[in-house]
Amino acid sequence: MIRFNNDYNCGAHPKILEALAATNNESYGGYGIDSWCEKAAAEIKKHLGSAQADVHFLVGGTQANFTVITAALRPYQSVVCADSGHINAHETGAVEHCGHKILALPGTDGKITAAQIAQEAELYRTSDIQEHITQPKLVYLSYPTEFGTIYSKKELEDIHAVCQEYGMYLFLDGARLGYGLGSEQSDLSMADIARLCDVFYIGGTKCGALFGEAVVITDKSLRTDFRSYIKQAGGMLAKGWLLGLQFYVLFKDGLYFEITKKADEYAMELKKAFIEKRIPFYIESPTNQQFVTLADADAQKLAEKYTFEFEKKIDETHSCVRFCTSWSSKEEDIQELIRDIKNL
Amino acid sequence: MIRFNNDYNCGAHPKILEALAATNNESYGGYGIDSWCEKAAAEIKKHLGSAQADVHFLVGGTQANFTVITAALRPYQSVVCADSGHINAHETGAVEHCGHKILALPGTDGKITAAQIAQEAELYRTSDIQEHITQPKLVYLSYPTEFGTIYSKKELEDIHAVCQEYGMYLFLDGARLGYGLGSEQSDLSMADIARLCDVFYIGGTKCGALFGEAVVITDKSLRTDFRSYIKQAGGMLAKGWLLGLQFYVLFKDGLYFEITKKADEYAMELKKAFIEKRIPFYIESPTNQQFVTLADADAQKLAEKYTFEFEKKIDETHSCVRFCTSWSSKEEDIQELIRDIKNL
Amino acid sequence: MIRFNNDYNCGAHPKILEALAATNNESYGGYGIDSWCEKAAAEIKKHLGSAQADVHFLVGGTQANFTVITAALRPYQSVVCADSGHINAHETGAVEHCGHKILALPGTDGKITAAQIAQEAELYRTSDIQEHITQPKLVYLSYPTEFGTIYSKKELEDIHAVCQEYGMYLFLDGARLGYGLGSEQSDLSMADIARLCDVFYIGGTKCGALFGEAVVITDKSLRTDFRSYIKQAGGMLAKGWLLGLQFYVLFKDGLYFEITKKADEYAMELKKAFIEKRIPFYIESPTNQQFVTLADADAQKLAEKYTFEFEKKIDETHSCVRFCTSWSSKEEDIQELIRDIKNL
Amino acid sequence: MIRFNNDYNCGAHPKILEALAATNNESYGGYGIDSWCEKAAAEIKKHLGSAQADVHFLVGGTQANFTVITAALRPYQSVVCADSGHINAHETGAVEHCGHKILALPGTDGKITAAQIAQEAELYRTSDIQEHITQPKLVYLSYPTEFGTIYSKKELEDIHAVCQEYGMYLFLDGARLGYGLGSEQSDLSMADIARLCDVFYIGGTKCGALFGEAVVITDKSLRTDFRSYIKQAGGMLAKGWLLGLQFYVLFKDGLYFEITKKADEYAMELKKAFIEKRIPFYIESPTNQQFVTLADADAQKLAEKYTFEFEKKIDETHSCVRFCTSWSSKEEDIQELIRDIKNL
Repeated sequence: MIRFNNDYNCGAHPKILEALAATNNESYGGYGIDSWCEKAAAEIKKHLGSAQADVHFLVGGTQANFTVITAALRPYQSVVCADSGHINAHETGAVEHCGHKILALPGTDGKITAAQIAQEAELYRTSDIQEHITQPKLVYLSYPTEFGTIYSKKELEDIHAVCQEYGMYLFLDGARLGYGLGSEQSDLSMADIARLCDVFYIGGTKCGALFGEAVVITDKSLRTDFRSYIKQAGGMLAKGWLLGLQFYVLFKDGLYFEITKKADEYAMELKKAFIEKRIPFYIESPTNQQFVTLADADAQKLAEKYTFEFEKKIDETHSCVRFCTSWSSKEEDIQELIRDIKNL
Repeated sequence: MIRFNNDYNCGAHPKILEALAATNNESYGGYGIDSWCEKAAAEIKKHLGSAQADVHFLVGGTQANFTVITAALRPYQSVVCADSGHINAHETGAVEHCGHKILALPGTDGKITAAQIAQEAELYRTSDIQEHITQPKLVYLSYPTEFGTIYSKKELEDIHAVCQEYGMYLFLDGARLGYGLGSEQSDLSMADIARLCDVFYIGGTKCGALFGEAVVITDKSLRTDFRSYIKQAGGMLAKGWLLGLQFYVLFKDGLYFEITKKADEYAMELKKAFIEKRIPFYIESPTNQQFVTLADADAQKLAEKYTFEFEKKIDETHSCVRFCTSWSSKEEDIQELIRDIKNL
Repeated sequence: MIRFNNDYNCGAHPKILEALAATNNESYGGYGIDSWCEKAAAEIKKHLGSAQADVHFLVGGTQANFTVITAALRPYQSVVCADSGHINAHETGAVEHCGHKILALPGTDGKITAAQIAQEAELYRTSDIQEHITQPKLVYLSYPTEFGTIYSKKELEDIHAVCQEYGMYLFLDGARLGYGLGSEQSDLSMADIARLCDVFYIGGTKCGALFGEAVVITDKSLRTDFRSYIKQAGGMLAKGWLLGLQFYVLFKDGLYFEITKKADEYAMELKKAFIEKRIPFYIESPTNQQFVTLADADAQKLAEKYTFEFEKKIDETHSCVRFCTSWSSKEEDIQELIRDIKNL
Repeated sequence: MIRFNNDYNCGAHPKILEALAATNNESYGGYGIDSWCEKAAAEIKKHLGSAQADVHFLVGGTQANFTVITAALRPYQSVVCADSGHINAHETGAVEHCGHKILALPGTDGKITAAQIAQEAELYRTSDIQEHITQPKLVYLSYPTEFGTIYSKKELEDIHAVCQEYGMYLFLDGARLGYGLGSEQSDLSMADIARLCDVFYIGGTKCGALFGEAVVITDKSLRTDFRSYIKQAGGMLAKGWLLGLQFYVLFKDGLYFEITKKADEYAMELKKAFIEKRIPFYIESPTNQQFVTLADADAQKLAEKYTFEFEKKIDETHSCVRFCTSWSSKEEDIQELIRDIKNL
């Protein structure tokens, strides 16, 4: 089977395994206080446009999400996000388990707008029963979204402005950050994101690492004792250097950007093939996830050779499915799928 | 000012104050282990059609809601309710603070249907990523709802059936239970509710008591150590007999049902006056809360003499407002308001 | 039976019931925004020596304790208190349920010392694994303690100084505050407590009210959105004026201090009787709770006429028991008990 | 520097890195549903003496601890453990953050006894204020303990019996399980542990893996939806096969037992050297952690060449320090340290 079902179905970029092997007999301090974490943070900071940031390495995305949110919010404060946001739809209520309500806004393409956020914030500000409702205090965006869509610089700036106006934190979940920045349609850089967000994370798990997410905190108030939150949440890896080392390999020479950009290009080739075949898109995505509405017969045929993710039934004979390229996708597999799409 | 703003703006029924005065020098055991709580529970059980129930007396509604939900759910389980449900809209995220996600279903009139609940439950049952989403395990209804509407026996039986099918608890918030049962449109009795729900509470605060809600647990599994949940949640009144005594007075001779029924009748008189004046209803309610769409000029005029609750702007010149009768409403005040409505 | 088992086994001071009756037909705003809460807060503030305080009225002690602690602490911060502290020993783990570790210090007489607190704080400050342990951030004292003992002004000033040095909040649980201040051994005033503590509460339930605790917040940072915490915790009484009214009655003319002082005097008479009878004290208490070590035969004899609380077995034939006077104790009952002690 | 500071300062056993490299281009299902996790579970089960167990692979120990405890307890239930227990002393209050009180029992050597546990359980069972205290429901042991000591089969059987009698879960934290079982003083097998405990975990992080802990659940009631707890707690690794693969390598041919036993033997050689040098032990340990009381001058000298962990000051001129051997310790380093001990 050729796997297009997701972007975390293979180990790691070979350079990471090499680095792990090369340092396997070395000894390091525990819990993320080591030279590799330091070096990795330094490499990441080069992209931020400012040294005023803390970088922490966590193991996984759900963990990163609820740790950041726990650190940011008081018990009566809530999170604003798209109803399709990962924290709302796919994390077993982890944010609520940590005590916080999610105010989920309808987002047709996985995105929410500055206007929607402002409306929610205004509702609270003008309420005369404030103590009976939660205070929206943090905006959670994913970039790219769960549907592969991305915010433009203008959109992110507008959201940032709303957050500033209402005293809300802006938190960007970059589990697939590389695929977002690598899109030809993206007009954002990591420096833009660092400038506009109070905290975000750089996904490793889906972008070439064995595992790991690098949380970047630019807001001063969020930095206090953040390591205590990580430890309490079970996110502090004993052999923390394993995370630092991986991010160092990914960021030292731009490998991170290179491999995710390549995956985006592959996705665009698939996209072109679907367009030519007049297979409609469920949602228009400029990144590595492509959502199409396939005839079930076609889906069945492709499923003999490829894995891809079933999303939902569209009608009696059609379904929305996701084809996902990744840092580990191979040229020949892409070409084979393109041929098979043509032959549908 | 004549108050129609809510049903908790006066002290208590005089008989309650009399009973408090009569027992003021008596000594009782603490924390709800006393003769009055026993007697009150016995009176309430007479209405349940079964002695197989535990009755606990708590101070307030939010407390009762989250205590029951905490006792019923494991951390990964969630609550299904209407988006207008009190726990979702007016309790500062208390349920989420206790760790549970609320799956809020759209309910145009404050109610949700068996079909909606079944759909949500089915979504989980058929999910192949169950561990990534929460398990809907408890259905929360309010009776009457926050819009004054009520479920019919058929509707409640259907919801009960869905809950049975999917192994979900059915919890009914009866903060205004008297006003629901007292409605001429109600075809439910307390015995029906006890038969169809696993747990519910009988509101005292809004129905003639100084304060207090009587939680009735019919489901066996929910009864275990419930007092531990009450104490932990801060809901165990030191002088628990104050609660028992009040409910005893309300239930001994049917006072509870009498005074709330009267309030419903008053509300129907107001309703008639609005209909005759062709003032449209925002929502059709058969209980003590009446939601009308008033011209702002009319609202302003009435506001000189009456308090009522502003709900929301409807258009440039109209607003939805709530007139609420209560156990403490007086005949002459009702008639005066009716006259003033006629004169608008 | 004559009750000396606790100080919450009777209704309320008659003046409170009178005030409730007198205002029963009045209408008030809900949730603690009303004229009685305002007036009560004003009366209380007269005793504080500063108007810079917020006063909130909650229903019960456990609720007040965990609401204050929830508002004060971040998830990785902990509470320092005596092992016998009410929050540690008698509240079903409510503080831990809210997410916070309690660092319980051994306190032979219910009290802890500035030195003990400093040691705990220093342990954290000098730790090189701070993120692996909790940060002691709030000191919880009870005044009087669960053993009836009280802190001297010097002791409280020393604890205050340690809290200042280490950036910890000082929180005083005054569920029996009146009995503490009313002791002839007390050299503290409410103004002292307000000056030395960041937050404390004035117990109503055990000091003449039907129920209710007045939380006084002097620290600025703790005041932010405190009403949101109250509501979320289920502590916001719908008919909040019932609380305000009671505290107004208690504080307007010093009734609160008068009735608790009287109870202390009664306790001192009992104490004298025990001393004369050479019945040893389990702990020396200058307030309304008296802990003595009784021969079981004597206890059995007294138990025929009086209720008192068994605390624990001391040896084969002796037990520690508590005799508790209260605002509702009657002169003749005290004298009768004294006679019976003499006749043991 | 030669590292004896802990047992997690090196990468992984070379065979693990080889296996990772060999499978790096393979694709697997996500979130622990894959062939390696299956195979690893099968290998582990061979040691359990029963196939009636669920095996789950988590990333770290703190995570494993609070996930198990969250799954096992209701909000008013508490954990019994030694005061030196990892969950009590080194996890930033994670258990309390999850809502549960820890009842910490004094344990001079890191262990607690069946009698201590029974006393705590009896205190609850015989309490007449049960709802005011927490219910001890789970016993947490570490094997070996934080001081390197181990329970004998008799001791564990006695604790098991108490747990059965009082309806408590027995949970064994085996972060260093290999070093416990590998001790010449151990009379326990994994089958014994599986038989006597309701749930335990097999530490990978400290025993040869890059990271990972295998949670083994033998009790039926604890198995329900355990994956939901893992996901919600952020412990579900996207590339779950990385965990399965590592445990497969460790358990297939007994590598796990071999490398930890070797470390124990090294530790016994160090122990012998200390004994011969008449350097006293802070605590007598039969496993890979050796706690000695060193003269500060000697410690300083050794610190020039070796890392070891400072524990605490003993007196003006002596300190307790820990020397820790591990699966990665090398024969020549052990011999060098022995020589240097002799030359002190």
